[in-house]
Amino acid sequence: MTLKEIVERARKGAAVPIVERDVERALSALLASEDIWRVIDLSQVPVMALVRVLAALKDTGLLAWDGGRLVLTQRGREFAASLGIGPRLELKCPHCGGRGTFLGPVADIADKFKDIARNRPEAIQDYDQGYVTEETTLHRVAFMWSRGDLKGKELIVLGDDDLVSIAAALTRAPKRVVVLEIDRRLVDFIRDVARGEGLPIEVAQHDLREPLPPDIARGFDAFFCDPTESLRGFMVFAERGIAALKGPGAAGYLGLTHCEASYGKWREIQRFLLEAGAVIAELRDAFHDYVNWPYIDHMRSWPHLPVHRIPGREEIWYRSALIRIEVVDGPHIEERRYEGDIFSDEEAATT
Amino acid sequence: MTLKEIVERARKGAAVPIVERDVERALSALLASEDIWRVIDLSQVPVMALVRVLAALKDTGLLAWDGGRLVLTQRGREFAASLGIGPRLELKCPHCGGRGTFLGPVADIADKFKDIARNRPEAIQDYDQGYVTEETTLHRVAFMWSRGDLKGKELIVLGDDDLVSIAAALTRAPKRVVVLEIDRRLVDFIRDVARGEGLPIEVAQHDLREPLPPDIARGFDAFFCDPTESLRGFMVFAERGIAALKGPGAAGYLGLTHCEASYGKWREIQRFLLEAGAVIAELRDAFHDYVNWPYIDHMRSWPHLPVHRIPGREEIWYRSALIRIEVVDGPHIEERRYEGDIFSDEEAATT
Repeated sequence: MTLKEIVERARKGAAVPIVERDVERALSALLASEDIWRVIDLSQVPVMALVRVLAALKDTGLLAWDGGRLVLTQRGREFAASLGIGPRLELKCPHCGGRGTFLGPVADIADKFKDIARNRPEAIQDYDQGYVTEETTLHRVAFMWSRGDLKGKELIVLGDDDLVSIAAALTRAPKRVVVLEIDRRLVDFIRDVARGEGLPIEVAQHDLREPLPPDIARGFDAFFCDPTESLRGFMVFAERGIAALKGPGAAGYLGLTHCEASYGKWREIQRFLLEAGAVIAELRDAFHDYVNWPYIDHMRSWPHLPVHRIPGREEIWYRSALIRIEVVDGPHIEERRYEGDIFSDEEAATT
Repeated sequence: MTLKEIVERARKGAAVPIVERDVERALSALLASEDIWRVIDLSQVPVMALVRVLAALKDTGLLAWDGGRLVLTQRGREFAASLGIGPRLELKCPHCGGRGTFLGPVADIADKFKDIARNRPEAIQDYDQGYVTEETTLHRVAFMWSRGDLKGKELIVLGDDDLVSIAAALTRAPKRVVVLEIDRRLVDFIRDVARGEGLPIEVAQHDLREPLPPDIARGFDAFFCDPTESLRGFMVFAERGIAALKGPGAAGYLGLTHCEASYGKWREIQRFLLEAGAVIAELRDAFHDYVNWPYIDHMRSWPHLPVHRIPGREEIWYRSALIRIEVVDGPHIEERRYEGDIFSDEEAATT
């Protein structure tokens, strides 16, 4: 048995890219955990590719899943050892969860933010929602502050089920915060909170498939968005975000996962960002932890999973990288109008 | 007074790019510290640009440097406040120094590594040397291990004044470690240590301006290098590193500073990496801390500094980002032969 044979078997009829390194990563994760959610998290292989790798490992007698656990067989362990593969080590700093940030002045608004978030609208599948933990949102705001993108700045948030606008505005650091959001429930919620707390947040209902309103384009120092991850959907968010920036020195923040995006897709996205005139200033993998959404057993990848256990609400397995870009030149962006579904591609796992 | 006027003044006759955001970053750093080395570190503006910004701030009466401190004048403070600029906040996790990693099993070799490093050859200007702290090298190895690029892998180090090869090999995790190094002193040092400790390190003296030896090309799972930072010099290292990789799934690590590289240069480098078939998998800014080198008062930027104080040996001001790339396609690389100086460009500050 070789890695190549396993990959070829996994690829048969597959619509997603699968490479040998994906098998290595899966084996390394399987050596560290027998739990499906932990294996997804540790492997960092797109879910729709991982399920095929797991099936190929089972077919070849290297893996078994009886009783709800993913168990490498004796042959599976020997195979991994023969390739020099060890159990995946995370080595994340236990104090900051590997993010590298500490909250500093953002800690002062933590309790207030958590209080407010207690009444947030629940995530729904219609808009591919799924929000990050409150801790994550707070670290995100601290990160932006430390990079000079918050204090005295005009910030736009494109889609805000994470309530970044509220956490940012609570710090009283930004000059202005604007939210474009498609979901009426969130528009109303953020608007009500802003009114109640006297926060400088302007919220408009907007479908990002449409170009930005003219008073928004080219008006901001920074944007934040956590795009849907089909390639097309990601581009919609990135295009609108970049089009909202004033020019060189303005910054953008985007989230990007492994669960729904191969490194091939990452690379296409990065080429687009560079062509638009931006540089990738930082890329911190697994910065964002997501709270499990209520429609988890209705997501696209669910029927393909080898084990069907619904994870606990804060049993984190879905994470995303935090990418910070900065405009060097331009931005060079042509806003297009999109139609139809922007949520799906072959690698999509949650919609 | 506007940001634009200050930038225009700073740009007059300048050979390096300077943007408005550089002035913002400088002001933010000056609000946080009056010490030249701390201001360089906090501003994240290339040194050769920063010195011109500082001069422009002085010329316009916003900054003074008497008695060796950089002091914003009352007008300078009012100007910063009018733009909403606050003191730079680092918000680095104090436990991991903002790196996000913890050493895990690498901690077991820390004492041994520090013992060995005590006798290392000192950094010299001939090859633009300047090594990172031992703590940094250990975190680097932990990072590589956690990303699956160490255990059971074949690793090549291109230029190794940081002694990465020794730290990596001491963990006994890699299958093979190869070093290409131009400096005879380092070749001998690493070879002697490897012999004495029984480490699987092969060292060859090699000038990276020359293409890789044929037995090296396409033979490795991962490369590590901390390039000299002229654009040309960076490309030399990156080209050789990528040419040494086996193919898709293989990874490369590179260091990159703000001190000697503008975001414009970063962007050119990133375009090159993507075109070579790689994706930027991670980019952790300020991961690497450097020990001050003995030739600091002979470096290129020294005469341009407003204050001439030699910093203490471990008074960190020069840092670099850790970039991890992974080959998605190819790699597509054509190895060129270089001649002459690869250390200098207009943004170079230390050679």
